[in-house]
Amino acid sequence: MRAPVRVTFADSDGVAFSTPLHKRAASAGNASLAQVPTPMALDARLRLALAGLAPATPFVSGSSPKPGNLSFPLKPTSASLSSANAPAPPPPPPPPIVVVGSANADIYVEVDRLPLVGETVAARAGRSLAGGKGANQAACGGRLATGATYLVARVGDDANGRLLEDALADAGGVRLDRVARAPDAPSGHAVVMLMPDGQNSIIIVGGANMEGWDAGIGPEDLDLIRQAGVLLLQREIPDWVNVQVAQAAKDAGVPVILDAGGMDAPVPGELLSLVDIFSPNETELARLTGMHTETFEQISQAAGACHKMGVKEVLVKLGSQGSALFIEGEKPIRQPIIPAAEVVDTTGAGDTFTSAFAVALVEGKPKKECMRFAAAAASLCVQRPFIPNNGCAGTPNSTDPMKFP
Amino acid sequence: MRAPVRVTFADSDGVAFSTPLHKRAASAGNASLAQVPTPMALDARLRLALAGLAPATPFVSGSSPKPGNLSFPLKPTSASLSSANAPAPPPPPPPPIVVVGSANADIYVEVDRLPLVGETVAARAGRSLAGGKGANQAACGGRLATGATYLVARVGDDANGRLLEDALADAGGVRLDRVARAPDAPSGHAVVMLMPDGQNSIIIVGGANMEGWDAGIGPEDLDLIRQAGVLLLQREIPDWVNVQVAQAAKDAGVPVILDAGGMDAPVPGELLSLVDIFSPNETELARLTGMHTETFEQISQAAGACHKMGVKEVLVKLGSQGSALFIEGEKPIRQPIIPAAEVVDTTGAGDTFTSAFAVALVEGKPKKECMRFAAAAASLCVQRPFIPNNGCAGTPNSTDPMKFP
Repeated sequence: MRAPVRVTFADSDGVAFSTPLHKRAASAGNASLAQVPTPMALDARLRLALAGLAPATPFVSGSSPKPGNLSFPLKPTSASLSSANAPAPPPPPPPPIVVVGSANADIYVEVDRLPLVGETVAARAGRSLAGGKGANQAACGGRLATGATYLVARVGDDANGRLLEDALADAGGVRLDRVARAPDAPSGHAVVMLMPDGQNSIIIVGGANMEGWDAGIGPEDLDLIRQAGVLLLQREIPDWVNVQVAQAAKDAGVPVILDAGGMDAPVPGELLSLVDIFSPNETELARLTGMHTETFEQISQAAGACHKMGVKEVLVKLGSQGSALFIEGEKPIRQPIIPAAEVVDTTGAGDTFTSAFAVALVEGKPKKECMRFAAAAASLCVQRPFIPNNGCAGTPNSTDPMKFP
Repeated sequence: MRAPVRVTFADSDGVAFSTPLHKRAASAGNASLAQVPTPMALDARLRLALAGLAPATPFVSGSSPKPGNLSFPLKPTSASLSSANAPAPPPPPPPPIVVVGSANADIYVEVDRLPLVGETVAARAGRSLAGGKGANQAACGGRLATGATYLVARVGDDANGRLLEDALADAGGVRLDRVARAPDAPSGHAVVMLMPDGQNSIIIVGGANMEGWDAGIGPEDLDLIRQAGVLLLQREIPDWVNVQVAQAAKDAGVPVILDAGGMDAPVPGELLSLVDIFSPNETELARLTGMHTETFEQISQAAGACHKMGVKEVLVKLGSQGSALFIEGEKPIRQPIIPAAEVVDTTGAGDTFTSAFAVALVEGKPKKECMRFAAAAASLCVQRPFIPNNGCAGTPNSTDPMKFP
């Protein structure tokens, strides 16, 4: 028999305590847990945020608490346990996480089959949800981080742009000051045709994600990046944008994490040389290096090839095999998955992993702990459906509009 | 050599006069022609509205005049010629046109080919525009009618719903009081995959158009219909809604026009028995009657079959062959097309034809004149691209967001 899950909270004096989750859920009532002051221990924030609660940032949504049904075996951190016995003034919030990346309206249509050329078919259902790897990772950061999370993105001046802005605002915790409307491009969007056997076909319109940066990266964006605790990038915007913002971060000593997800094209060497932590999954790692990545030995060798390309740290997402961090000249750190009670949908788990890793990193946690936190976030992510019953299209006040969490 | 096109206007005292269009265009400057008082002659309004000008209704948009390059041989009507010599107080505006029907967000993606199952492809371009046969016909009415045009429709409480409301507001002249937001359904939308050879494949999500009426047709909607000059229906909403509103119209002596366009399913006899004018194209007529409609003789026989189903008047749209009105027991009225200088896109021409016919009908014109007006409107419609350079997604202030005109 497993020990009951314990979850740590900070009380109104900033004193953390721990309570078995089922008791906490029963006693939480309707009190607004968004009022709980910072800092909460990582694990507690993870549970709260992933249960649908906004974190204690200045940009929380007005959600009521929805205690989750969480039951995997994470223990309270030693930091939160020790603070339970010794009240102390809260430390200043960590510097912001800055995500530069895509925001995408994902248009899901459920069809029995794809239409033929010239044919019109009726969908069984359809809805539009906010997505895009940049927006997903920012929403995750906004929910988990005690400091601020900014998204630097370009949307169109159109209905989908408003959908994205509303969804990010509803997700809570994401600073949207630097989400700009591109005048001449539609918001990035994707048509996802879902078929009954679980297969899908996707049409992607890059729109503002690709064409919205033509006016350049402004000084406000660059200043923000220079003051960040971490810069988080993906590959759904032009490479030249990633290079420019990564250069600004590197010049200011801000660590740069590049999630390899996004376009299926070689990563420019110029970009890799500016990246501190490169985070591919096995497929992306194989694509980049041209090497096999079936075994851990092969993955280690491919990570070594990345080191030779100028990336000191390679954080590989291995699906059901967990993750591994290859730091040049050091022994790999492995993190197994944290088993989910039920895997509902794995979509967005990679975005969740990378973003949660950045959240822990910016708070100064050791790499091993960052990986454990990221694994826990990903575990919770896969237990939730990718298309919630109430998508952002139908529920502008929903706290659950993003893929994550 | 053709005589110059003449166009009639009403001056500020309500006196109509006529001026060759090229002179009028040169002298119009930036004065707001939306200020011109009613009534204008049908032809003049047609030219103004289709050139991008809003009609003189209380719901005009703030567009600046864009005199069009119109050159087909329509003469001023005898009514407008006679009133040029005899000032008279303007008649009261005609009763409203009420359109009950669909409003749809049409999501166009330009692809080199359809994706395979499991495949992701990048689109060359994409944009979302307002459409749906109900919204199209209402927008046409809003631009052409001197009286009010109401749209009774259901949209979702989502980004596409706002797109539709904004586009209809921008189109000018459409009363949106009865466009309601359905709480539990997404706005109707369609994904239109456009291929380089001009072929397309379409996925339709009925959404609020189909599911948004569950709360029933409210007394305000029914009261509005009872006071209408004409009720204009199509087949992109549930049959039971069409039956209910057509019954209300019939009980109040309001003529009902049913455009056969929309779902590919038999028209219920109950609905046909409530319709005064049924307007199919040849294909729809063939589908309904199970008869051939290749020759005029065959079409006449199929129209006769409609008469036997209880519809007294059948207004058949014949594409390049024009149109024909079959009134039971009378000789058919034929109207050839009015040739367009250049056919850019025929999409929306059917909606334009039916709606313009209703506009003329509600103003008491003889059927023959209604058909000529409708033909002229359709002729102008096909001279304009279906996807304008500035779709409503990108230009919320555009006067040109609807398919028509």
